[in-house]
Amino acid sequence: MASTLLSTRDLHFLLYEWLDTEALTRRPHYADHSRETLDAALELAERVATDHFAPHNKTNDANEPRFDGERVHVIPEVGRALEVYAATGLSAAGMPASVGGAQVPHVVSSACGAYFQAANLGTSAYPFLTSGNARLLLAHGTPEQVDTWVRPMVEGRFTGTMCLSEPQAGSSLADITTRAEEDGEGGYRLFGNKMWISAGDHELTENIVHLVLAKIPGGPPGVRGISLFVVPKYLLEADGTIGERNDVVPAGLNHKMGYRGTVNAMLNFGEGRHAPGGRPGAVGYLVGEPHQGLKYMFHMMNGARIGVGAGAAAVGYTGYLKSLAYARERLQGRPLGDKDPGQPQVPIVEHTDVRRMLLAQKSYVEGALALVLYCARLVDETASAEDDKARERAHLLLDVLTPIAKSWPSQWCVEANSLAIQVHGGYGYTREYDVEQHYRDNRLNPIHEGTHGVQALDLLGRKAVLDGGSRLSLLVETARATADRARELGGREAEYAVLLSEALDRTAETAAAAWAEGDPAVALANATPYLEAVGHVVVAWMWLEQLVAAHGREGGFYEGKRAAAAYFFRHELPRTGPQFDLVASRDRTVLDVSPDVL
Amino acid sequence: MASTLLSTRDLHFLLYEWLDTEALTRRPHYADHSRETLDAALELAERVATDHFAPHNKTNDANEPRFDGERVHVIPEVGRALEVYAATGLSAAGMPASVGGAQVPHVVSSACGAYFQAANLGTSAYPFLTSGNARLLLAHGTPEQVDTWVRPMVEGRFTGTMCLSEPQAGSSLADITTRAEEDGEGGYRLFGNKMWISAGDHELTENIVHLVLAKIPGGPPGVRGISLFVVPKYLLEADGTIGERNDVVPAGLNHKMGYRGTVNAMLNFGEGRHAPGGRPGAVGYLVGEPHQGLKYMFHMMNGARIGVGAGAAAVGYTGYLKSLAYARERLQGRPLGDKDPGQPQVPIVEHTDVRRMLLAQKSYVEGALALVLYCARLVDETASAEDDKARERAHLLLDVLTPIAKSWPSQWCVEANSLAIQVHGGYGYTREYDVEQHYRDNRLNPIHEGTHGVQALDLLGRKAVLDGGSRLSLLVETARATADRARELGGREAEYAVLLSEALDRTAETAAAAWAEGDPAVALANATPYLEAVGHVVVAWMWLEQLVAAHGREGGFYEGKRAAAAYFFRHELPRTGPQFDLVASRDRTVLDVSPDVL
Repeated sequence: MASTLLSTRDLHFLLYEWLDTEALTRRPHYADHSRETLDAALELAERVATDHFAPHNKTNDANEPRFDGERVHVIPEVGRALEVYAATGLSAAGMPASVGGAQVPHVVSSACGAYFQAANLGTSAYPFLTSGNARLLLAHGTPEQVDTWVRPMVEGRFTGTMCLSEPQAGSSLADITTRAEEDGEGGYRLFGNKMWISAGDHELTENIVHLVLAKIPGGPPGVRGISLFVVPKYLLEADGTIGERNDVVPAGLNHKMGYRGTVNAMLNFGEGRHAPGGRPGAVGYLVGEPHQGLKYMFHMMNGARIGVGAGAAAVGYTGYLKSLAYARERLQGRPLGDKDPGQPQVPIVEHTDVRRMLLAQKSYVEGALALVLYCARLVDETASAEDDKARERAHLLLDVLTPIAKSWPSQWCVEANSLAIQVHGGYGYTREYDVEQHYRDNRLNPIHEGTHGVQALDLLGRKAVLDGGSRLSLLVETARATADRARELGGREAEYAVLLSEALDRTAETAAAAWAEGDPAVALANATPYLEAVGHVVVAWMWLEQLVAAHGREGGFYEGKRAAAAYFFRHELPRTGPQFDLVASRDRTVLDVSPDVL
Repeated sequence: MASTLLSTRDLHFLLYEWLDTEALTRRPHYADHSRETLDAALELAERVATDHFAPHNKTNDANEPRFDGERVHVIPEVGRALEVYAATGLSAAGMPASVGGAQVPHVVSSACGAYFQAANLGTSAYPFLTSGNARLLLAHGTPEQVDTWVRPMVEGRFTGTMCLSEPQAGSSLADITTRAEEDGEGGYRLFGNKMWISAGDHELTENIVHLVLAKIPGGPPGVRGISLFVVPKYLLEADGTIGERNDVVPAGLNHKMGYRGTVNAMLNFGEGRHAPGGRPGAVGYLVGEPHQGLKYMFHMMNGARIGVGAGAAAVGYTGYLKSLAYARERLQGRPLGDKDPGQPQVPIVEHTDVRRMLLAQKSYVEGALALVLYCARLVDETASAEDDKARERAHLLLDVLTPIAKSWPSQWCVEANSLAIQVHGGYGYTREYDVEQHYRDNRLNPIHEGTHGVQALDLLGRKAVLDGGSRLSLLVETARATADRARELGGREAEYAVLLSEALDRTAETAAAAWAEGDPAVALANATPYLEAVGHVVVAWMWLEQLVAAHGREGGFYEGKRAAAAYFFRHELPRTGPQFDLVASRDRTVLDVSPDVL
């Protein structure tokens, strides 16, 4: 039986037939790799995800982490899965050779990651946060910090977190109050409370490396006074072995609707439970320069945002495959017009409305996966393209795509999971099947790492206008080049090329219209409909890219791609018309409504 | 502090300023009532819902019903709530005086019911199913059956169920296999298994009255051979006291994502655990004529469908009010462009995107509540209008509105609950707040009592074409009359009247275009987008109705109505354009896709 995590056939198509991933192996940066090593990584990921992550996904959900006032308890399956993940080299796969990594291209390690996210979103969060943390320190830490903290994370001995939010400061990081006081010996002591810390406490690994945003007293106010610190759960001895307990303690856990396998903790720093070296405060090590913390954190955050999109796509994808398998097996009813109860019932995939729900899911989840892998491929360009201009271009395109790669899968793959439930009927609503958990797990994605609304402000308020709108122009031009290629192919591809070109025109025109009065309050009043419309345009582009790659290829797999593309262009892309109309009209309904009349 | 269940101010507006409910009290059928008695019923409902249903909503969710192999255990708060419900006369409120009821107009008892659904969807299901069951027996049972079964239900001593589905027969009732054998003494014995039976077993009341679909051997095949039986959990002695246990036993419970407070059971009939009178089979009493069971059951089912819509609206409504209260209290960030961290943070309702999410919710939940109360008002017309023509007209309009009143709230009030979570940010995703449960509870509504897709086939495949399409024409004409009244008012009302008229034109034209080839497979290939578009048109109509009722009235309440109507006409109604285009084009994407390529 085929895997119901992801379609390996589709991943191969995306990586090799579309994104020309093999070409990367001819670049110096990835010279150690070949099609064989990449395939081996994908196979390993599928096997470990299937054998060690998927089996406890429901167990994780039904037995969420528990805090006894002192320690956090996680089911043992999680620790065993992480051991296998490290032992098979997966924690090192995507990391640079300089720290013991295998330096697999990012697009391939992202594809590998999608297997784990599909198998068990809760457990996969531990290594994924760790790798984001390690990448940040690689970019901004000292060589000593890299040796001390990154290497054990690459080896899977330590895990990492990102500690941004506080109870009074979620989306508004300007308002964090955690403070980092100089200890007089070149170090810092931290005091404060952090909220929503995923993987914030557990005993799955030897140590936890917290990356913490805090303010050094006397610094500038607001976001310009935020610095970044490494704050380990345990201090290390000079030889790297685990030493004294640092003063970072969990104050409680959040109990969530889904995503339950990942510990989510409130953490107190320097509350006095421990006093390293007999002095108050949690020991912290400054990363980079003072007051530059938010900038560094965004290095991790941008990766994390695309990771959120990838997780949403993966959970959407497995829900699709499970509902497809169900629809092929479940017998119910007869074809339209055939009411003869003497005839046997048919598999529900024979019912048109069930096929609609499957095709919609396919267009969402394969479109979302294509988008996040496209972004990962851009990361590889920024790391390995030979000329500066190509690297810069990839960087800018990634920058404008990030809010879309975060928000679009988070919105539409929850919808896919809802359709997966609907295909199952009443069974899908029970905990006996998997899809209701996918729906609950996936619903976090529009919230964390910058809410849906924050992504909308980022797109229309920043990315669309920075540097004279050059990022948005680059996006439009790049997609238009796809439309040009498709137009030359004629047939359906040419037909969709016209639709995409029109939608791209509207993408650019609508941003200009929104900003026509120059007033941010007016321009951004409908930022969310703009984000959602552009998301649909970008995914239509991803579908046209896939159609071009599939052109002239025959067989069921390619027919499936063409059917899903047709669904997206005919049923989905037209949704953007009224959204663009609304944004371009600078509609003031929401802007002007008084809170008092709600 | 105002209630966060429903807005009583809004209910009064809908009932008295819009639907002219007081006029009903001048009709003979409701002559015992007055504005005072109706207000008293509403106040009582709000108080009992607030004091006895809402407090255990979370407890219900966290401690779902449990089956020990013999008995089903429900938390004691449910039984106590039902006792209060019966003791205060609520179980009798909407029932006819002939069986001891208070004969409150249906529109008022629906409004009362909405308080309970908002407070605790799980617990409210017990009395609501009971009342549906009682109404069916009132319509189709013998006087003796009414005395025996309906009176104890009106008194709250018995509860009722509807037993349709079987493991192999969910949407396809033609395939049920439960059989009812004549016992040779004028009675029947039932044998078979039923699935998804809400309130199917418990010890909350003295007895349970199951209404069961079964086939009498030798009858016609398919749906034309289905008969309806009363099958009580306990047989009654001649004096009406509880007698021998009947052979209906729970085989297990379904464990759901939400709606957990309602027992959902698999039931075995006549499996042999009990043998009433020493003979095999569950004792059943035929209702009405043999083989007419499905028709009778649809009597209950149509009411249940509108009840599902009402529940969805109520749960959406309470989520809206809770997210509104949160948005007014939660401080986060500063107005756009003001980054001065020296300024205090503002309540998040000040942020435009938060207001968007609140206004969207308001437009969905108040629109949905208006729709279900409009339908309830039509039920009152069918019961009390003085001339036959008015009764028939109300009946036909209700008939075409039923699939919309079931499906639209079920779709958009889940979306409202999703927005309520989003307004709460991370907090909304935790079980510490209420909104995540509302989202889970509400997700059942597009599934049970006829799935979303079944409603779509009912609308475009039956209601739009029966009797030459007269039902759909009636809907369009009735809504057009509202547009005509609004046009005379000028201003914004006239502007929206034009938009509604255009949408009504498309409603009729698109149904005709879908059927232009006369082939049901083609016509119904896009039945769901048609259902969804018409749902939006109908709710736009409901908003224009409210605007007309609010015309010339001043104050925050009416301004709120105008803002929500503006949101619906500007942000929502335009969605229907591409949907109508798609359906009218008889798009074959979904129809033609081969299951093999999915």
